[in-house]
Amino acid sequence: MIGHDIIAAPATAAGGAIAVIRVSGDGAVECCDRIFRGGCKLSEAAPYTVHYGTIVDGERIVDDVLATVFRAPHSYTGEDGVELSVHGSQYIVSEVLALLLRNGARMAAAGEFSARAFLAGKMDLSQAEAVADMIAADSRAAHALASTQMRGGYSAKLGDLRERLLKIASLLELELDFSEEDVEFADREELRRTMTETAAEIECLAASFSLGNAIKEGVAVAIVGAPNAGKSTLLNRLLGENRAMVSEIAGTTRDTIEERMNIDGVVFRFIDTAGLRDTADRLEALGIERTRRAIERAKIVIQLVEPDAEYEPLKVAAEQRLVLAINKIDIRRPAIVPDGAVLISAQTGEGIDSLSAAVRAAVDTSELYAGSVVVSSARHREALEAAAAALSRAAAALDDGLPSDLLSEDIREVLHHLGTITGEITTDEILGNIFSKFCIGK
Amino acid sequence: MIGHDIIAAPATAAGGAIAVIRVSGDGAVECCDRIFRGGCKLSEAAPYTVHYGTIVDGERIVDDVLATVFRAPHSYTGEDGVELSVHGSQYIVSEVLALLLRNGARMAAAGEFSARAFLAGKMDLSQAEAVADMIAADSRAAHALASTQMRGGYSAKLGDLRERLLKIASLLELELDFSEEDVEFADREELRRTMTETAAEIECLAASFSLGNAIKEGVAVAIVGAPNAGKSTLLNRLLGENRAMVSEIAGTTRDTIEERMNIDGVVFRFIDTAGLRDTADRLEALGIERTRRAIERAKIVIQLVEPDAEYEPLKVAAEQRLVLAINKIDIRRPAIVPDGAVLISAQTGEGIDSLSAAVRAAVDTSELYAGSVVVSSARHREALEAAAAALSRAAAALDDGLPSDLLSEDIREVLHHLGTITGEITTDEILGNIFSKFCIGK
Repeated sequence: MIGHDIIAAPATAAGGAIAVIRVSGDGAVECCDRIFRGGCKLSEAAPYTVHYGTIVDGERIVDDVLATVFRAPHSYTGEDGVELSVHGSQYIVSEVLALLLRNGARMAAAGEFSARAFLAGKMDLSQAEAVADMIAADSRAAHALASTQMRGGYSAKLGDLRERLLKIASLLELELDFSEEDVEFADREELRRTMTETAAEIECLAASFSLGNAIKEGVAVAIVGAPNAGKSTLLNRLLGENRAMVSEIAGTTRDTIEERMNIDGVVFRFIDTAGLRDTADRLEALGIERTRRAIERAKIVIQLVEPDAEYEPLKVAAEQRLVLAINKIDIRRPAIVPDGAVLISAQTGEGIDSLSAAVRAAVDTSELYAGSVVVSSARHREALEAAAAALSRAAAALDDGLPSDLLSEDIREVLHHLGTITGEITTDEILGNIFSKFCIGK
Repeated sequence: MIGHDIIAAPATAAGGAIAVIRVSGDGAVECCDRIFRGGCKLSEAAPYTVHYGTIVDGERIVDDVLATVFRAPHSYTGEDGVELSVHGSQYIVSEVLALLLRNGARMAAAGEFSARAFLAGKMDLSQAEAVADMIAADSRAAHALASTQMRGGYSAKLGDLRERLLKIASLLELELDFSEEDVEFADREELRRTMTETAAEIECLAASFSLGNAIKEGVAVAIVGAPNAGKSTLLNRLLGENRAMVSEIAGTTRDTIEERMNIDGVVFRFIDTAGLRDTADRLEALGIERTRRAIERAKIVIQLVEPDAEYEPLKVAAEQRLVLAINKIDIRRPAIVPDGAVLISAQTGEGIDSLSAAVRAAVDTSELYAGSVVVSSARHREALEAAAAALSRAAAALDDGLPSDLLSEDIREVLHHLGTITGEITTDEILGNIFSKFCIGK
């Protein structure tokens, strides 16, 4: 993945009025000149200028295009490059790509443009990953998440942690140089405090994955209740109110029991579950088992009950939120309203706005919108957890009065794990894994 | 449709690595400046330059973008304009569009950019229509067709015809000015010759619609034969050989009995028909009736027979081509091979290449690839036929020795019909009809 040979790929999806083909690498501009006829040669054009011309195959004109010239190092990949804006026909895109391949380019692999940007130092690994998240973002919250990360907010935070740890490691390693003299450059008390603080911050970051992942994938909301409590009617009603916002989003996958919808900038995945009750029927029991698992996975649980019906409040985990909704108020208003319950009629739509608001309020995005760092990648969480574990080993070693060389080794391991996130420390395997998940042309 | 207010629309389809948003109109650059932060103001930038920056909503950064500045009159629409290249997320595209709308732009109607290009005189109507064909082109032949038209080959041809007719009309109208003196500026013999020649050329153009339309929509090929002659096996075999070429083309519509495939640059629509035989069964008779209609509509008919079977050669119209294929040669080689028959085995694939070649050879694209004008729009054919009819009325008037003012009137009508093709003569209704079929952003 390290070369600078000429790569080409369509950067836009099929089906628009125009399509953009990206070409990048040593000699990319000259490669395009071989098939471009315009007012001037692209290789003689000033960088960052656009030129109208035609793409030709010998005498045959393939298309009228706009060609934009980029020069190293000020381009996405850090290399020389050209973006060809052609008519949005799949046939033309294929023809132009075929011409480029015959003139020195090769098809880019998925994510190869971004991989080159990373290798050229245009961005670190977490920023490159954020580019993919940015493209996939389908809500304001997911966009804010990817945007903070892409803009290096996350990298700055990690850089700060690494710097503190590096200072500790350097002091400890300095002690090794003077080991004969048994001096302690690093004040053990201060060392302990720094380590505790840093560990807390790393753990806090790792813990933010729960929110980050929910926002990226859609916050799971289980709708739970006795049979005929009105769960499916509620799902349809919620969808009715919000479908327009969701249907704009391309590629929304629909399961039989799961529907995505965007409430005030956050995508929720509403899960319609089987009714909860004791049963001897084996098939129904399986459905109820699935419901229990859905509840476990959900971040928010809507418990649907009828007015004044006896019910057992569902037990949810500490990080889950339970919203109690009393349905069918069009038939009967409840005599007693439990604290925090929302009164609704899935049938008529009454109170549905309040329920949506309650669901939305269960997800706090204020810090996210303020640019705080929230982890949304499982790879990052793993690295953070490994870092936290190494740091707690170091703290234990300190308490046990172990020598500074062992202490230093643990700190170096923490640094290693943090380094894999931004890519200071990396392997071809990690890179291949990350960039192969990108789309072609990015 | 005549304004120069600021319009905006995505020019690329959803789902790529990047998306392009087009903005055009008086003040388009200033409109973008209100939401763009970069190294310089776009309104102060040199035209045809690209600028890296961010799109901002107040303090919130929406995306990193590349902005290209265009200035009237050297732009697609002939107006000032900006193309914003953003990350290919549907969410970001919506956000940026919403920002543009809040800052003075409005959403462009379908085809509005091209309509403005037409109204600005950047291209005539037939060229604008060719842009839409260009985007839809899914084969080399359809592309060559649209390309010739877009590049003005068609307009030049029509311009030539109009010029000749205008010359006649002027001479005739000059006679009117001197009507008292009973002079004839236009030599009646030469007039007649010019009119006959022009009429022949117009009719020739109108007749080319049959090829042009077939190439644009796909050339219809009916596979016909007795029950169990192997028609469906042949269709599958043909598809098997060619499917890869077709499956690349987005939006290929599949009917139960119709399959599109690309053979050497031309898209063919193969139609698997019901077996032909006499029957008393009403349902089967309906199927056979459909087969007869399919044969009538087809440009090419493949008649499938078994080796040495008795068969009646199908009667086809003069403009149709009949290809005789003797199937099942894996079971038995025929003792007698009729002239021009192709020997095949749909079962094993033997001879299928020759059959494909015979089908492909039935469509002559050499003139098309040489840039000859071929009409592919039903609107144009109608106008050409109306022009031809008016011209034959003029010729009859000439023969009848009618006065030059009546003659001139007929010639003016011919000019009118030709003028509607390129848009010299047009109405808002025609324009609305044409451009509303374009995609948004074009």
